[in-house]
Amino acid sequence: MIGLDKLSLNQVTVGNLTAAEAITLCAQHEISAIGLWRDRVAADGLAATAKAARSAGVHVSSLCRGGFFTHADPAAREAALDDNRAAIAEAAELEADALVLVCGGLVPGSRDLALARRMITDAISELVPCAQRAGVRLGIEPLHPMFCADRCVISSLGEAIDLALQFPADAVGIVVDTYHVWWDARLAAEIARAHGRIVSYQLCDWVLPLPEDVLLGRGHLGDGCIDFRLITDLVLATGYDGYAEVEILNRTVWDAAADVTALTVKSRFAGLLG
Amino acid sequence: MIGLDKLSLNQVTVGNLTAAEAITLCAQHEISAIGLWRDRVAADGLAATAKAARSAGVHVSSLCRGGFFTHADPAAREAALDDNRAAIAEAAELEADALVLVCGGLVPGSRDLALARRMITDAISELVPCAQRAGVRLGIEPLHPMFCADRCVISSLGEAIDLALQFPADAVGIVVDTYHVWWDARLAAEIARAHGRIVSYQLCDWVLPLPEDVLLGRGHLGDGCIDFRLITDLVLATGYDGYAEVEILNRTVWDAAADVTALTVKSRFAGLLG
Repeated sequence: MIGLDKLSLNQVTVGNLTAAEAITLCAQHEISAIGLWRDRVAADGLAATAKAARSAGVHVSSLCRGGFFTHADPAAREAALDDNRAAIAEAAELEADALVLVCGGLVPGSRDLALARRMITDAISELVPCAQRAGVRLGIEPLHPMFCADRCVISSLGEAIDLALQFPADAVGIVVDTYHVWWDARLAAEIARAHGRIVSYQLCDWVLPLPEDVLLGRGHLGDGCIDFRLITDLVLATGYDGYAEVEILNRTVWDAAADVTALTVKSRFAGLLG
Repeated sequence: MIGLDKLSLNQVTVGNLTAAEAITLCAQHEISAIGLWRDRVAADGLAATAKAARSAGVHVSSLCRGGFFTHADPAAREAALDDNRAAIAEAAELEADALVLVCGGLVPGSRDLALARRMITDAISELVPCAQRAGVRLGIEPLHPMFCADRCVISSLGEAIDLALQFPADAVGIVVDTYHVWWDARLAAEIARAHGRIVSYQLCDWVLPLPEDVLLGRGHLGDGCIDFRLITDLVLATGYDGYAEVEILNRTVWDAAADVTALTVKSRFAGLLG
């Protein structure tokens, strides 16, 4: 069980709103935290967004996203590191609990998973001192294996934890997103092993059939087949006391009025997890 | 490296052909084995298909499929067992190397993965004596996690091996299908652990973007991002000396002339694995 005071709304769930509008929506609906996306923060301005969140009393539970480290060209890898350093600075100014890393798929033109994974390890090594200086925790997010080729070769929670454990806990943790990891027979054991390393907990449901763009096949809690109470209890049992962030990428949800979405998010969360 | 003498063509790759036509195609193209599907075998008649394969000198490397064990209604579970016993008898008459099991998704109306997995274990327990009497090996096929909810809750090779190891090796093994397992960071270790348990090895490529029906997103070897030589070497290193079966579900491949498909399958196989 987790209370509504721990609910965070990821802004992509109300994808038509600006960052400022999403922050206002959270304040109006007494949702005490928000997950922000960099492009929307940039559109409103970093300083203005940070100020808006503080003024509204809305905490930033995560900033999405850094990562995409896997490039054949060394200059492109260096550019990715620079972009991630900028993301770390943004996360610091927003006082975000974590900077979410979507680490990148196969290196273009390559079928070598191990190469891509080494590049990711190397990149995170490079970023750790920057993250520590800024007081920002990087969250390695394992993505569902259907995104392995093009978005993230870190495809299971166990692999993300193995990677995170190579680095200091104040700098690197993992993100548990129910959508990406619910299927894993090792889930309970891996979450237990993530003790002290969970920097973000995200929730949305797995809804069938998958849409043509599989990025957008996510649903409100309860509309699909994920056992949220089970996974949430496992996460809480590690001592995690951060926010539970509802992050839904779905055209139908985007087309709904933001107030309706906020009410649905709250009622589903309370009903399934309260 | 694996020779063309170990190539098998799964009949679904030439999905417009009858079983008899697919057997003839294999013989004409000097492909020495075929993977058959039960519905097509039934359409031609079991005895006629078995005879056709023997006459043509084409070995049956697999029969697809048994499984779908996960039902809320006990009568439906019993009916599934009966159907699987029939499938075992068919595999025996065809002298197939393995009966492929697609074990089933979540129990309808349930979000309980553990329940579905227990039902699968129970069902295989029931089938083992029947398989042993018939001299048929059951092959537990882990399916890609994107099929976990609706087709198979066994989503990783490790889980399939853990399950198979509960039963005698002459009755239960696992199927390695590149499409379903290529993304797994534990792949090398798990394949090594499958020593003596691999009863079928299937190949097709992971091609992006995924089509609207994600069942059909598979491609000819070389058209996607899977490193077939790496995985094949791992499989062979376990002592596996069975066939390597090319199984492609893809509308464009189905629309091609069967002779062209057979030639493409052979040339890609030889080029990538020879």
